[in-house]
Amino acid sequence: MHRTRVRVVEGVLDANDTIAQANRADFDAADVTVVNLMGAPGAGKTSLLERTVRDLAGVRVGVLEGDVQGSYDATRIASLHVPVTQINTDSGFGGECHLDANMVRSALPSVPLADIDLLVIENVGNLVCPAEFRVGEDVRVMVAAITEGEDKPLKYPLMYRTCELVLITKVDLLPHLEVDREELLASIDAVHPDVETMVVSARTGQGVEEWRRWLAERVALRAAAPVA
Amino acid sequence: MHRTRVRVVEGVLDANDTIAQANRADFDAADVTVVNLMGAPGAGKTSLLERTVRDLAGVRVGVLEGDVQGSYDATRIASLHVPVTQINTDSGFGGECHLDANMVRSALPSVPLADIDLLVIENVGNLVCPAEFRVGEDVRVMVAAITEGEDKPLKYPLMYRTCELVLITKVDLLPHLEVDREELLASIDAVHPDVETMVVSARTGQGVEEWRRWLAERVALRAAAPVA
Repeated sequence: MHRTRVRVVEGVLDANDTIAQANRADFDAADVTVVNLMGAPGAGKTSLLERTVRDLAGVRVGVLEGDVQGSYDATRIASLHVPVTQINTDSGFGGECHLDANMVRSALPSVPLADIDLLVIENVGNLVCPAEFRVGEDVRVMVAAITEGEDKPLKYPLMYRTCELVLITKVDLLPHLEVDREELLASIDAVHPDVETMVVSARTGQGVEEWRRWLAERVALRAAAPVA
Repeated sequence: MHRTRVRVVEGVLDANDTIAQANRADFDAADVTVVNLMGAPGAGKTSLLERTVRDLAGVRVGVLEGDVQGSYDATRIASLHVPVTQINTDSGFGGECHLDANMVRSALPSVPLADIDLLVIENVGNLVCPAEFRVGEDVRVMVAAITEGEDKPLKYPLMYRTCELVLITKVDLLPHLEVDREELLASIDAVHPDVETMVVSARTGQGVEEWRRWLAERVALRAAAPVA
């Protein structure tokens, strides 16, 4: 059974990459920088995003929300007057535990690419499968809550290995936890040496300005790049 | 592509149920009560288990640890002198984001069923796919950290619907969070009316004795039941 499944999965991943390239071409044509934002359920992706998009001076941002079902996060983001599109993996996609390139492609007609510089795709909360499916993004960013403990990078290494930035969030809770921040950083470094990390808190705002600057620089990089 | 995938998935789930029944028969023959313990990555499943198995008076417990890779949790449990078996979904199972009945079956020769009354199977940290795969368990228990926020039951309803007990853990952090416990309970009730819930903390021990009693009662129920 498993050999058949592996072959099916390989076929699915090849098809996914082809569609991801088509998404990529559309994003390039519209000059939109795309971030695939990943993390465990309840890591605080949406809370951080709410805080981030409020004051992204000069950068026009849009959000694509991926959830198994419901539109709770999309409603939160929409209240900030940011264009947001919901993808539910439950509707026609079998309740998948991740976004894939085809799901993103199906949502693109509803994303106002001409009116934004930056699209943040908030993936389904999951530390395993989202890492396997490219969706046409420029960069992959992980949100890792300090409350999840020090060992998660060692247990879910692929996710940590495929991202360009790890945001360690909920750090306002650190004084109340038996979690060692340095040990978490060492675990991240063990699976992805020299990956960039930032320590943030959506509640206190710690580190959020640095994260905003990182995003703005990514957008500026594209603006400065010669058209391919 | 998706219709083919749905058919493949249905076939996989049928095959899974057949193997789950074989596991079930082996557990019954050995008079072992089996708990499938599920929850998000970093919800605190292992910490709660460490605290729980330390003093399960009169109940001989074994643990089956499911992880994508590594044996960090198994090492923690083994240090408590509890028989523990590791399943890695990375080794021969394609790095799956959940345990299935076949993975559990492949591990059974290493589980000392004759010497235990209770087997706790700690699933891979994930709020989506583990809910779809029965492994031959008697009961499904979810660990939901209060730090994950109030909305997770609404966003991952299948997981909450398929379990018999929800353990709301890390409640010692409640004074430091902007999370409303009653709202979380209301969300759970909305997707699974009248499901049993307990409020626990692995750090302070709050609620752990009640959870131990719940487990002991489950084991006693089997001992009292007529042999089928």
